[in-house]
Amino acid sequence: MAAESFARRPATQEEVVKETSLPFNLAQIEQISHEYPTPFFIYDEEGIRQNARVFMETFSWAPGFRNFFAVKALPNPHILAILREEGFGADCSSEVELEMAKRVGFRGEEIMFTSNDTPEDQFALASELGAIINLDDITHLEYLEEHVGLPSTLSFRYNPGPLREGNAIIGKPEEAKYGLRKDQLFEGYRRAKEKGVTKFGLHTMIASNEKDPEYFAETARMLFELVGEVHGKLGVDISFINLGGGVGIPYRPEHKPVDISEISASVQRDYQAMIIDKGLTPLQITMECGRAITGPHGYYVARVRHVTEKYRDYVGLDGSTTNMPRVAIYDTAYHHATVLGKEGAPREMVYDVTGSLCENNDKFAKQRQMPEIHPDDLVVIHDAGAHAIAMANEYNGQLIPGELLLKPDGPVVQIRRPRTMEDYFGTIVDFSQT
Amino acid sequence: MAAESFARRPATQEEVVKETSLPFNLAQIEQISHEYPTPFFIYDEEGIRQNARVFMETFSWAPGFRNFFAVKALPNPHILAILREEGFGADCSSEVELEMAKRVGFRGEEIMFTSNDTPEDQFALASELGAIINLDDITHLEYLEEHVGLPSTLSFRYNPGPLREGNAIIGKPEEAKYGLRKDQLFEGYRRAKEKGVTKFGLHTMIASNEKDPEYFAETARMLFELVGEVHGKLGVDISFINLGGGVGIPYRPEHKPVDISEISASVQRDYQAMIIDKGLTPLQITMECGRAITGPHGYYVARVRHVTEKYRDYVGLDGSTTNMPRVAIYDTAYHHATVLGKEGAPREMVYDVTGSLCENNDKFAKQRQMPEIHPDDLVVIHDAGAHAIAMANEYNGQLIPGELLLKPDGPVVQIRRPRTMEDYFGTIVDFSQT
Repeated sequence: MAAESFARRPATQEEVVKETSLPFNLAQIEQISHEYPTPFFIYDEEGIRQNARVFMETFSWAPGFRNFFAVKALPNPHILAILREEGFGADCSSEVELEMAKRVGFRGEEIMFTSNDTPEDQFALASELGAIINLDDITHLEYLEEHVGLPSTLSFRYNPGPLREGNAIIGKPEEAKYGLRKDQLFEGYRRAKEKGVTKFGLHTMIASNEKDPEYFAETARMLFELVGEVHGKLGVDISFINLGGGVGIPYRPEHKPVDISEISASVQRDYQAMIIDKGLTPLQITMECGRAITGPHGYYVARVRHVTEKYRDYVGLDGSTTNMPRVAIYDTAYHHATVLGKEGAPREMVYDVTGSLCENNDKFAKQRQMPEIHPDDLVVIHDAGAHAIAMANEYNGQLIPGELLLKPDGPVVQIRRPRTMEDYFGTIVDFSQT
Repeated sequence: MAAESFARRPATQEEVVKETSLPFNLAQIEQISHEYPTPFFIYDEEGIRQNARVFMETFSWAPGFRNFFAVKALPNPHILAILREEGFGADCSSEVELEMAKRVGFRGEEIMFTSNDTPEDQFALASELGAIINLDDITHLEYLEEHVGLPSTLSFRYNPGPLREGNAIIGKPEEAKYGLRKDQLFEGYRRAKEKGVTKFGLHTMIASNEKDPEYFAETARMLFELVGEVHGKLGVDISFINLGGGVGIPYRPEHKPVDISEISASVQRDYQAMIIDKGLTPLQITMECGRAITGPHGYYVARVRHVTEKYRDYVGLDGSTTNMPRVAIYDTAYHHATVLGKEGAPREMVYDVTGSLCENNDKFAKQRQMPEIHPDDLVVIHDAGAHAIAMANEYNGQLIPGELLLKPDGPVVQIRRPRTMEDYFGTIVDFSQT
């Protein structure tokens, strides 16, 4: 009945490259799974470090360049500690994320606190840590002053509204809940200066998983122009800009990585013309990339439970998309799936790769051409190093799995243990013990 | 700038009805929030009991009628205990859900285990509890026999494929990972009988949040016809059918509730003609409704932190849509929002009601005509009694809130405590203590 199963083709060159680039092989994962049963996430420390170094190196022309890693992308303190060693800061958006940065040892301007609809206690914690507070709303200026007091350094988040188009994932800026309109931004700097703020930042974040370098170059130009305008009209000198994150990654084998050096070169040219040549230095450049740093270096590993045929051919894993909902929620989300031991093998079958959730969108892959799969095969879902476990839920009582770190010299350490039945029942009053 | 804010109209009659039907008022919630700070979910025990009784009464003509409550809709044992008292069974799909049913005291045929891509240990637990095992796949027959042994009672899930259209939410049956094709179904009954199974069930589940009574009547006819066909061709007498769940609820004020009595009357007519008149009795009728039972009797309550104007007017709550993602994930999802103390008041403003998540779809309501809202107002999100906290996640470090039960005689008890910072860090190796 499953007519699609007769598809058969060799792996493409791009599939071969993606699948043979894995930092582990079948034998290693079989070994690991004895101690840590599937499903689990595993992160490649060496890959993350190298990626972070390339990122830092590419922007080394910019004095004081810093990338605040978006904690929301991969909220594990072990990963944050690695990135701190590589010179990154932490971009936090909530109390838990501030607390995590604190436990890792980030302090002061190593932390940028970019939240919205923010309560006073979170402003207080950010203030206590000496974090850079980035205000998302014009009303938050008085709110912060009243409840916590104004810090000497303050940043504002700019929302360009109809002046920029946004992109498919993040939507149109004028429909976004974030930031200040241009008139509000100028009002914000004016009032903040009056109130004694002495150091100013400017932030924007208007794209997510964007792969066109020109988009980021354009964002930088927009902010450089604003720096000049704020200087000219208000006499306020902006000390740092944050270009936001949103640099995409190549989820599909045929996609190319974003050329960071192209972004950097373009930003550098404009920095020369629009900032240095106009005497607007010193201006520090910062970003808050998360996905681009860890996304490609995380993997979700699950074992095949069942292979069966209905109206389609199905592969059922021992994990569910509750573990990484983005693969199921977004229609456009594609995560490559490698069958360990069959890297680059011919595509003999067409499968839907599912979990065991009673929810129809519980599919890691739909109508995917893959090598023939058998029960007990190990399947690796790629690009699970960002916005994966971060969004996990326990719908249908499917417990959140653990996270492993593959160290540069080979050993594996567990950095988050899987949730247990007793964890699940732990918050239920009167039923927390059997 | 926010031009939409000039909309002004009286509340519609339907809005007035929906908003004044709340089982609590502003003063009560203010009182409750002293002990249990917002945000929280609150369930109306009296409403759930009455709804359950109407459901049972409506189908009382059917001998042995049972609704197995879909645990996934509202996985709290306190709610399950209430429904067990009202004569409901439990529809479980995973180990956690089976364990929850067990802790509540469900045993034997009070439990129906409808899972897919099922591991052997879950079949073993279901078997140990004496639950009705409903096989989702033809290969699971041998798998169950081999690993656990076949029970004397066995049910199969039927997937009609292209014979039925499905609906917008659950998708087309032939693209669904569930169930057996018709040829597989017949093969399943034949083999199960050979292997000594003596009592048979037939299940299907092909719609979600469907509001057309005729859809369910048609599903019953489809199963009644199959019961006759299986009897005629295989000599297998099916003892019970499960029509599935999927009965929708009126999320929008202008929607009417599904007329259960219309479903019941139609099913009764066809039961007479297709089962009784053909001598196919006894045939027990069961269902597995979840949303229709508890959905309208649960509420999500949050307090307004900020009200502000950008390109639109925004209301920021002290909870996020991570608490009930369906309101943000599904484009068509609408949850009515009542401002306590302003029930049925004129709609003077147009708001986006947001949480504090750094995710653009973090909106409880978009461009919604509402009464004017101020900080500290209490907002109630309706129809949060199903598939709400069940799907909650902690993206951005937004902790899952607690659940309260409003008892029939007035008092409120906490049935799930809010997650804490230490819960969050509890599974992170080496960082679980400050």
